[in-house]
Amino acid sequence: MVYITRKEHFNAAHKLYCTQWTEGENDQVFGKCANPNWHGHNYDLWVTVKGNPDPESGFILNTQVLSKIIKEVITEKLDHRNLNLDIDLGGLQPSSENLAIWIWNTLKSHIPTGELHCIKLQETENIYVEYYGE
Amino acid sequence: MVYITRKEHFNAAHKLYCTQWTEGENDQVFGKCANPNWHGHNYDLWVTVKGNPDPESGFILNTQVLSKIIKEVITEKLDHRNLNLDIDLGGLQPSSENLAIWIWNTLKSHIPTGELHCIKLQETENIYVEYYGE
Amino acid sequence: MVYITRKEHFNAAHKLYCTQWTEGENDQVFGKCANPNWHGHNYDLWVTVKGNPDPESGFILNTQVLSKIIKEVITEKLDHRNLNLDIDLGGLQPSSENLAIWIWNTLKSHIPTGELHCIKLQETENIYVEYYGE
Amino acid sequence: MVYITRKEHFNAAHKLYCTQWTEGENDQVFGKCANPNWHGHNYDLWVTVKGNPDPESGFILNTQVLSKIIKEVITEKLDHRNLNLDIDLGGLQPSSENLAIWIWNTLKSHIPTGELHCIKLQETENIYVEYYGE
Amino acid sequence: MVYITRKEHFNAAHKLYCTQWTEGENDQVFGKCANPNWHGHNYDLWVTVKGNPDPESGFILNTQVLSKIIKEVITEKLDHRNLNLDIDLGGLQPSSENLAIWIWNTLKSHIPTGELHCIKLQETENIYVEYYGE
Amino acid sequence: MVYITRKEHFNAAHKLYCTQWTEGENDQVFGKCANPNWHGHNYDLWVTVKGNPDPESGFILNTQVLSKIIKEVITEKLDHRNLNLDIDLGGLQPSSENLAIWIWNTLKSHIPTGELHCIKLQETENIYVEYYGE
Repeated sequence: MVYITRKEHFNAAHKLYCTQWTEGENDQVFGKCANPNWHGHNYDLWVTVKGNPDPESGFILNTQVLSKIIKEVITEKLDHRNLNLDIDLGGLQPSSENLAIWIWNTLKSHIPTGELHCIKLQETENIYVEYYGE
Repeated sequence: MVYITRKEHFNAAHKLYCTQWTEGENDQVFGKCANPNWHGHNYDLWVTVKGNPDPESGFILNTQVLSKIIKEVITEKLDHRNLNLDIDLGGLQPSSENLAIWIWNTLKSHIPTGELHCIKLQETENIYVEYYGE
Repeated sequence: MVYITRKEHFNAAHKLYCTQWTEGENDQVFGKCANPNWHGHNYDLWVTVKGNPDPESGFILNTQVLSKIIKEVITEKLDHRNLNLDIDLGGLQPSSENLAIWIWNTLKSHIPTGELHCIKLQETENIYVEYYGE
Repeated sequence: MVYITRKEHFNAAHKLYCTQWTEGENDQVFGKCANPNWHGHNYDLWVTVKGNPDPESGFILNTQVLSKIIKEVITEKLDHRNLNLDIDLGGLQPSSENLAIWIWNTLKSHIPTGELHCIKLQETENIYVEYYGE
Repeated sequence: MVYITRKEHFNAAHKLYCTQWTEGENDQVFGKCANPNWHGHNYDLWVTVKGNPDPESGFILNTQVLSKIIKEVITEKLDHRNLNLDIDLGGLQPSSENLAIWIWNTLKSHIPTGELHCIKLQETENIYVEYYGE
Repeated sequence: MVYITRKEHFNAAHKLYCTQWTEGENDQVFGKCANPNWHGHNYDLWVTVKGNPDPESGFILNTQVLSKIIKEVITEKLDHRNLNLDIDLGGLQPSSENLAIWIWNTLKSHIPTGELHCIKLQETENIYVEYYGE
């Protein structure tokens, strides 16, 4: 069992804001992340697939193919978009935690060989999340 | 003459869109950067000051002081903001080029010792601009 | 279950030296790390917490809060300090291994929501350790 | 149980090409990786060893010693070499997957204290593999 | 005058070997870089263009356009190629120095607005060259 | 004229403290950098040499040779040392500014071909200095 990881990238706007809360509650929990006019990030996305290398090609799956799938299914929907307005997260906050789960659920069935193992999403130089589907 | 550089950081939303142009012209020049619901970036900002080290402290200027000034004068105004709506760029596009010039003009008179030499602004892993005030 | 990681930073001096050993033994095991006048490192510290995102905030725990806790409990005690003289490691060497265990034990009870999962401590570009509390 | 990781580096040429396949099949699977005149990469290699820190030295194993072993057993055989012509991979493609397994198998018995835990091999900024010996 | 830089990437094989020299001379100057079966690198290429931002678009030149030009004129010719066999460097060694000059000369006339200012080519984590056309 | 840069590395301890000043003055200027028990850094050092590539070797100077010289003349004297106690900076503070000038002056006459152009010294992720000998 070998694990192969492919990194992709997208840039998006979002804000963290709970409409059921007061301004003060939003400010206390989200601080400047709740600024009404949005802010944004360069997101790095690492997709890890596990499996056995094919005896002829030496590949778990072709990373060119994996890259194409991630772009079609995920990053073309997120890149240069607004994560609150342009993506349907089922009413959840566009936090990195919820976004990683959404990426897992959206991508999982599209992996052609091997099995999706981990979604790692880096929001800033200092913060990233990982989700293993459990 | 020694050059000292301090790196700071801010996250912001923006879009590139020319209101005098048609949709088609905006799309042709700006592509997905013109998406109406904004997108965003993690911006890295390097500020370079030149001068002679003080014979006692060994400093051109104290980088703790420099960091504080950059935060007060620049990044607190840009961080978690919308560069089109929250900053007055005199009607210019919030491109990295125009933003670097704005940072230079805003910061220049606040450098306490030495002289502002360069503003370097990195918008993505693959794109950065530099401005030397000339 | 999602894993969220926050990176912090500190700069410290240390040396590796066993007082029960001869100079020759220290030199053989620790080499230049045993130099009497100390040396130092820029340490990067990644703290990983696991848990379920809150349905309203979307957070396992607020990374602003996590950052504050790590600073108060860990990095303010280590930053610009001497790891042999200023920290009580119970007589153990200030190796990255022992330091990571000390950080885990010191930090664990302060995590407000979720559960501490991993301490990763990077000493140089080429060396890091990880500790999972087991 | 602590995990310590040491990073090493090598530069090598390779191509991915299956002699039993037609040109068209090679082109379809491997694309430009099958170019007959080779291409190459700067490979980053992370070797992770797990164990308990020695109570006197504070080390799982000395990273200076680990570095020397990795160089002697692995990177001196791979650095500035051709992975198809100069290494015996038993007829397998020099993919990162197969190379990581080969590094594990070649290195495992040379770890003096602790136990080999992971081989991570990074081929490009966007692609890496991990192998845990299972 | 603002300077904008776009980073691109290619992976290539090469060797450094002077056919007029003896084996011993090649070995003394080039060491393992002269290994007959080639080796390779992940090359990072930074292209810097200088100019005045357009008052409407805010661009010196569109980095999407610049990226496309660099790919068409430079990296598609170098990526997954052999720098000794597949590129005509006029009989010169495929050193980073000579390669940077070749990239400058090949690219210069294709810059649509602004002026080519610098070619920076990074061969390994520890080595890069810069050429300003002078 | 091409510029070639070689990166080297050293880890050292230091403190910034002016013996002619009161405790209060030291604290005001240097803050935690004046802590009596030292602190330390991982320093990255970039040495840039300019010159014309040799028509046969393609080199301004051999980076293997340059690396050896930097190690012998500079980093072996600084690595795992105390910059206040083990290096003679003529009574000046071991600030990055003064250290870069010292490295320039110490290294300049040892460059065998080409000419020393720049010393860049990075003290932390956020701070670096450059010195061009002027």
